[in-house]
Amino acid sequence: MRDVSIIGIGQTPVGEHWQRSLRHLAYDAVAAAMKDAGIEAATAMYVGNMMSGETSGQSHLGALIADFCGLRGIEAVRVEAACGSGAAAVRVGAMAVASGLHDLVICVGVEKMTDDVGGRLTSALAQAADADYEAIHGVTFVGLNGLLMRRYMHAYGVQHEDFAGFAITAHANAAGNPNAMFRKPITLQAFKRAEMVADPINLLDSAPMADGAAAVVLCRSDMARSLNGRAVRIVGSALATDCLSIHDRYDPLWLQAAEDSARRACAQAGVGLADIDLFELHDAFTIMSALSLEAVGFAQRGKGWQLAVNGDIRPGGRIPICTMGGLKARGHPVGASGIYQMVESVQQLRGEAGACQLPRARLAMTQNIGGSGATITTHILEAR
Amino acid sequence: MRDVSIIGIGQTPVGEHWQRSLRHLAYDAVAAAMKDAGIEAATAMYVGNMMSGETSGQSHLGALIADFCGLRGIEAVRVEAACGSGAAAVRVGAMAVASGLHDLVICVGVEKMTDDVGGRLTSALAQAADADYEAIHGVTFVGLNGLLMRRYMHAYGVQHEDFAGFAITAHANAAGNPNAMFRKPITLQAFKRAEMVADPINLLDSAPMADGAAAVVLCRSDMARSLNGRAVRIVGSALATDCLSIHDRYDPLWLQAAEDSARRACAQAGVGLADIDLFELHDAFTIMSALSLEAVGFAQRGKGWQLAVNGDIRPGGRIPICTMGGLKARGHPVGASGIYQMVESVQQLRGEAGACQLPRARLAMTQNIGGSGATITTHILEAR
Repeated sequence: MRDVSIIGIGQTPVGEHWQRSLRHLAYDAVAAAMKDAGIEAATAMYVGNMMSGETSGQSHLGALIADFCGLRGIEAVRVEAACGSGAAAVRVGAMAVASGLHDLVICVGVEKMTDDVGGRLTSALAQAADADYEAIHGVTFVGLNGLLMRRYMHAYGVQHEDFAGFAITAHANAAGNPNAMFRKPITLQAFKRAEMVADPINLLDSAPMADGAAAVVLCRSDMARSLNGRAVRIVGSALATDCLSIHDRYDPLWLQAAEDSARRACAQAGVGLADIDLFELHDAFTIMSALSLEAVGFAQRGKGWQLAVNGDIRPGGRIPICTMGGLKARGHPVGASGIYQMVESVQQLRGEAGACQLPRARLAMTQNIGGSGATITTHILEAR
Repeated sequence: MRDVSIIGIGQTPVGEHWQRSLRHLAYDAVAAAMKDAGIEAATAMYVGNMMSGETSGQSHLGALIADFCGLRGIEAVRVEAACGSGAAAVRVGAMAVASGLHDLVICVGVEKMTDDVGGRLTSALAQAADADYEAIHGVTFVGLNGLLMRRYMHAYGVQHEDFAGFAITAHANAAGNPNAMFRKPITLQAFKRAEMVADPINLLDSAPMADGAAAVVLCRSDMARSLNGRAVRIVGSALATDCLSIHDRYDPLWLQAAEDSARRACAQAGVGLADIDLFELHDAFTIMSALSLEAVGFAQRGKGWQLAVNGDIRPGGRIPICTMGGLKARGHPVGASGIYQMVESVQQLRGEAGACQLPRARLAMTQNIGGSGATITTHILEAR
């Protein structure tokens, strides 16, 4: 396998973009990434998107976005793995470079969620779950996560407010990120008072639906330095799956695909968890943060919530997470979130994270989750 | 790039499968392909599908289908490029093998179109076109193709019945294919009498909507012979795009991405068009057959229809097409059609095409089209 590096990053602010359509958002991120990389062309594009068919009446985003970005004719397809589409698109892009078939590849994640003309957003999100065995019963996607959180609290004797640290840390970190949707810190009192969404998940356990796009430019590492002195290497990359239905898992409180993909990515990179300086995890709901920390191995089974309580996840802590706000406070345009995680990690590794900059950032782990853990892609990025 | 071969093929009959859901169809094709290859495992799966979100309320097919096929945990994502999703998934699968990241990969195309509970099939198909500049005006996908066909007839002075040979040949060939949806030959009289769908496209210009799934198993060519003596090599593979909107093309009657992808695939394979023994093209409508033959170079501009009139496309003719019925008569489960083309080509190259067997079949070209030509993938397969 040829070595692959990220030589350009781009992102739109996350929020409600009433003036920008799906293709405009993607263009904004791609143009910024190409400018950052100092390139004017590429030979392939992989588009991560979950639900443009449902919310914008548009499929076929590969050709559409490549053309709209001025790259008519290049190889381009859409990659879909529900909320895990973004990192899955980067995984495919990295394979394209590794295969020797392409030297310069653009991966863009984009989602337009607020302009939901058909009122189909809730059912579109539920398509990440099993249509025939879960969604058919009327359970929503947040409802499934609510069941997981309740089970976790029961199994491990944990209170709802023990999760507060995940949301509080994310909002505190987002305050320094100009592209974050919510830049206002929140308090424990606010967390406890927040409106219920799907018991026990309340509004401040949940990442917000949003519009946004993020892009990375990939190239062969042996070309990277001459193109961009700030290149970041992808030293680990793995995608693992699990069954869609939570009831069909061996243990509903264990993200097997998080464990599998993280273990493989670490083995490729030749690093251990103690070497990781930041972990951009998939905090769509606070329960997912706890489960991810446990499955990857940063916490023991049933103890992930303690890292939120004791501050280990804060900047300067043992394993900083969601350093620029995470899904919770940067916002969660679903098909784009996996690439936002990688863009933000590159900012940290380059020392360009502004007010969010960590003092030490040499190795970053990113982990993007599709559904309730059925598709999980883990990448490890290394500063040059 | 590592050399890639197809060592297993599987398919379901194409038709109205009221007893089989999306996942069952995919399973049937994958199980058949794995049995044909003599394997019991693989490390990655790429699922080509256009519209399961619209017609089955289900996204996230990578993890779902991998698990349902007994391969829980492997790398798996969905690849989407409208009606070109099937071959695009094979293209990604071939990159996965070429990169050295995977040795054994399954690519499956699946579509369930007849069980359209929401009545959204027509609008789902239109998502292959540009939502903001084409579909918004109310034009359907067949309507766009009708405009193309009318323009072609006007520009080149061609009559509607000059296209009849495409449909007649497809139906005649399908008669020998046990997996084809329509195994009944049709006459010129029937073609001329067929009901109008979108003037000038009538029912017998059009491929039928259908359910079906087809799968191929890919592996490194250096492993292929020991696994399966009937392996077929992928000697050329290219995916090119064009703008979605037909009005935005330099020439609406020229499939630039067909030309580009075919030229690149031939160059990789080191072959010329005269070497190709069969051409499985994307005859979603008869007009697309004419345009494909011209853009690839089997006919001069404006003369593609003549190959239908003079019999060049029939078995034994200069360039046999749709040798097992094509989209027109085998049926067109959109996200699966690109893989049906490859499965049928492998049958021909192995000498296992039964009543459809061509006397000489050493090199096959397959070409799968997304939208009205915006994503086109061309593969060249060679018998060992």
